Amino acid sequence: MANLRLIDVATKRCPMQEGNESKLKQFVDSNGFHNFIIYLIVFNAITIGMETSPNLVNSVGNWFERIDNVILYIFIVEIALKLFVYRLDFFRSGWNVFDFTIVAIAAVPLAGPFAVFRTLRILRTLRLLNNIPRLRFIIEAILHAIPSIGWIMVLLVIVFYIFAVLGTNFYGADFPQFFGSIGETMFTLFQVMTLESWSSGIARPMMEKLPYVYVFFIPFILIATYTTLNIFIAIVVNTMNEIQADESQREEDRIKNFVRDENKEVKKQLSDLKTQLSEIEAHLKKK
Amino acid sequence: MANLRLIDVATKRCPMQEGNESKLKQFVDSNGFHNFIIYLIVFNAITIGMETSPNLVNSVGNWFERIDNVILYIFIVEIALKLFVYRLDFFRSGWNVFDFTIVAIAAVPLAGPFAVFRTLRILRTLRLLNNIPRLRFIIEAILHAIPSIGWIMVLLVIVFYIFAVLGTNFYGADFPQFFGSIGETMFTLFQVMTLESWSSGIARPMMEKLPYVYVFFIPFILIATYTTLNIFIAIVVNTMNEIQADESQREEDRIKNFVRDENKEVKKQLSDLKTQLSEIEAHLKKK
Amino acid sequence: MANLRLIDVATKRCPMQEGNESKLKQFVDSNGFHNFIIYLIVFNAITIGMETSPNLVNSVGNWFERIDNVILYIFIVEIALKLFVYRLDFFRSGWNVFDFTIVAIAAVPLAGPFAVFRTLRILRTLRLLNNIPRLRFIIEAILHAIPSIGWIMVLLVIVFYIFAVLGTNFYGADFPQFFGSIGETMFTLFQVMTLESWSSGIARPMMEKLPYVYVFFIPFILIATYTTLNIFIAIVVNTMNEIQADESQREEDRIKNFVRDENKEVKKQLSDLKTQLSEIEAHLKKK
Amino acid sequence: MANLRLIDVATKRCPMQEGNESKLKQFVDSNGFHNFIIYLIVFNAITIGMETSPNLVNSVGNWFERIDNVILYIFIVEIALKLFVYRLDFFRSGWNVFDFTIVAIAAVPLAGPFAVFRTLRILRTLRLLNNIPRLRFIIEAILHAIPSIGWIMVLLVIVFYIFAVLGTNFYGADFPQFFGSIGETMFTLFQVMTLESWSSGIARPMMEKLPYVYVFFIPFILIATYTTLNIFIAIVVNTMNEIQADESQREEDRIKNFVRDENKEVKKQLSDLKTQLSEIEAHLKKK
Repeated sequence: MANLRLIDVATKRCPMQEGNESKLKQFVDSNGFHNFIIYLIVFNAITIGMETSPNLVNSVGNWFERIDNVILYIFIVEIALKLFVYRLDFFRSGWNVFDFTIVAIAAVPLAGPFAVFRTLRILRTLRLLNNIPRLRFIIEAILHAIPSIGWIMVLLVIVFYIFAVLGTNFYGADFPQFFGSIGETMFTLFQVMTLESWSSGIARPMMEKLPYVYVFFIPFILIATYTTLNIFIAIVVNTMNEIQADESQREEDRIKNFVRDENKEVKKQLSDLKTQLSEIEAHLKKK
Repeated sequence: MANLRLIDVATKRCPMQEGNESKLKQFVDSNGFHNFIIYLIVFNAITIGMETSPNLVNSVGNWFERIDNVILYIFIVEIALKLFVYRLDFFRSGWNVFDFTIVAIAAVPLAGPFAVFRTLRILRTLRLLNNIPRLRFIIEAILHAIPSIGWIMVLLVIVFYIFAVLGTNFYGADFPQFFGSIGETMFTLFQVMTLESWSSGIARPMMEKLPYVYVFFIPFILIATYTTLNIFIAIVVNTMNEIQADESQREEDRIKNFVRDENKEVKKQLSDLKTQLSEIEAHLKKK
Repeated sequence: MANLRLIDVATKRCPMQEGNESKLKQFVDSNGFHNFIIYLIVFNAITIGMETSPNLVNSVGNWFERIDNVILYIFIVEIALKLFVYRLDFFRSGWNVFDFTIVAIAAVPLAGPFAVFRTLRILRTLRLLNNIPRLRFIIEAILHAIPSIGWIMVLLVIVFYIFAVLGTNFYGADFPQFFGSIGETMFTLFQVMTLESWSSGIARPMMEKLPYVYVFFIPFILIATYTTLNIFIAIVVNTMNEIQADESQREEDRIKNFVRDENKEVKKQLSDLKTQLSEIEAHLKKK
Repeated sequence: MANLRLIDVATKRCPMQEGNESKLKQFVDSNGFHNFIIYLIVFNAITIGMETSPNLVNSVGNWFERIDNVILYIFIVEIALKLFVYRLDFFRSGWNVFDFTIVAIAAVPLAGPFAVFRTLRILRTLRLLNNIPRLRFIIEAILHAIPSIGWIMVLLVIVFYIFAVLGTNFYGADFPQFFGSIGETMFTLFQVMTLESWSSGIARPMMEKLPYVYVFFIPFILIATYTTLNIFIAIVVNTMNEIQADESQREEDRIKNFVRDENKEVKKQLSDLKTQLSEIEAHLKKK
């Protein structure tokens, strides 16, 4: 409720003059305001973290909630200001949409059965990814690698699905805790792919009843880990390839420039020779 | 039975005119038909997956089986059409042989004690690998790396075999559950190589009786993981090497072209000089 | 106490002549002295290691302590000599500060409740990192990679913190042994990131009560391992990039030198032509 | 005994003529003989493997032992022939020394308490590493990488040793099964480095008594895995570096050759011009 009223206040500010608006733009884009928001996100992350301790909550009463509400108000004002300054351009950046969504979700008042979702407020910390340029750069670099591995992921999903159907059909009746349904088998296969207790916890107990169960596990492990390995290799090779093409291009450009400069002199000397020859020719013809 | 009859129908179509055949070729090679088959493979994979749920099977009766049969018929017709259009050329591509085999296996009617193998129908999903070019490309890239790691695999097999014989002879009598036979020791060694419970589940219990058993496990782990590491390094280095040789070649070609173009001008100027000189020489001689 | 007195003795030596000082410098910088200190560090590491065996300690009495004290005195004299020779320049190298701190800490007499910290003497072995150039080089290479991964580490910390708050709030009440507080959850998440017993020990027991707990674990594992993978990729790519830029630069320089030398000849020939032409021109004009 | 007599026979053959010797050399170096030895090594590996099965041994009696002795005799004759042909040059190759040692060890008759070492005969399979060139190449490539990682290994040993002394002193009294002595602690640390049950099996049980034990485990895991990671990176980067320097060198040579050829033409044209000019000059002077 309070949140909604605040948004009203923010949007009522709309009918202002250009002068104010450009001053506001300066303020919104200033380093000071930017850093203030970053410190506030970190401070909020710490207070939300401290709220997990029942002792702390008991001793300070509902101060945490009050702090949290104040910070949320500031975030809403911040987004509102940015919306006011940039209008719809604000939503052109995916990062801004991300920011807006996180604050909007946090502004939804939760009560009753949904109170457990209050803990999702910690997701606001993700705003750091947008507001610290170096982190945004890393996230973009990591996301940049995804297309090159997308189809290997599809391949991995196909492998998982085939083994999940086979596992459920073959072992579902005897070992329902591991292979009871496609979903449970998928979870078991994920565990096996991480190599966690795949033998001591799953394969060996099963082998007491089904001694040939290794023909299921060993091919799965080999295929799944080899495919995962190829995801990794794809990223390394791709990144290296791009960097190398860049480096190669730069080297090429420098060599070309060097050759061009060297040849410029040669051509200069050649054209001098030509001039000299023309003079001689003219001299001869004159005679 | 039904399957076999369908194949008859498909093969009886053979005596057709050329005109029809080229229209058929267009149809078989069309994007629409191609995408239809892909969607059908995915749809079939989903229905086979849903069949693993006893609740679903009970509620919808034998609809799953009917859908499955219809899809199988369509696959058989598809392969038959391709065979009819491409004749024996069809089998020139390893991928087509793969496709044909999968459908042929699925067409074998299974009953009685072999009913359990009906679940192998899910392997039809592997047809996606052939029919989606990007997946085929990845599979070929992954298989392409295998020759470069083949001999390291042989080395790993030798290491496994030697440790398996040593382990069986040394520990087979005392710990038959882990080292009872070459096969069981191989499985144990595979588990140890994945580092799963190698110490808490195998080495530590054995050390209570045989305190020096670590002289078996630690060298095996070091050798096996180091060799596996070298498989990985071989793939990365190989792939990088090929890419780099390509990139290097392209850079070289561009530099050469540039130098050639630059020199073309120099040579042009030189030959102009020569012409001029020849004129002068002729002029002088004339006099 | 004894240690402190020794430092006194060492510092009292200060008022010496230049001649002595340069001889001392030669001595301190000599290979013999340097190797003697290295052997002493290794020997001390071995004796401290042997002291962990109660049998050995009982049989040789307090010889270990005496050896240890003698070695400590020698180390203090060594540092004092270096300080005397290099004065405040000594502290300009971070490695010397490291050396000084380790010896200084070891010289603090520990007794009573702090006796347990005597075992920290083993940290003196770290002096090898400073005194063996190859090790120092590797440490510097490893530390050199850290800035390039610093922000990925920050990202990993944010991921950890968010999941720690979520985990503590969601599961703290039901599974206090794993998620009792932010700290305990952090430890659990670290264990999950190393994939140790994440499923058999943590997720599966929890799934008996909370069947959807996998929506917490699987995203965390995927995000945490993928981020860690990117740390690794960042190091490889960075190192390769630097090496490659160097190699590329060297290749470029060699090609440039070659082109320059080749062109030097061409230019020489051109200037010869010019001279010749000038002679002809002069000859013509003379006539 | 029999083995020793055979060696006598082999060495008595020495006084032969040159002609025979060169024929023998041809025989020893022939592909047929070489392949025969390879098949024999593989066959022997299989029979030694089959000997691990008590059922097989019971059913075929002592045939395995007889086959084994025959093969050993052949190996001894083979080495003796090579020794006779190549004399002391035989020992110049490390691989031959390796071969000789393996056969010599196998020829030592084992009986009584040493009978257990008969299983070491399986090490003869390692002769494949020498006799198959591709395997020898891989082994040499793997060993080639070791110097570049040698000092990182030393660093890892120092880290292990320091943590082993600390662990033994701090936890030896309370948890003798894990930290009872330097040796046991080393084994525990190796297990922790492989991340096997480090938390569920070791750290968590210890934390019930010593809640701050994570300050020992987490730094160790981070340092040990990061150092191991650097071993891996060192190998990749080193190998890539060598390959790249080669590739770069080849590219450079090709560009240089191309530039040289291009310039050869330019120089040719220039020297033609010079000749022409000289003719003109001579013509002018003649007049």
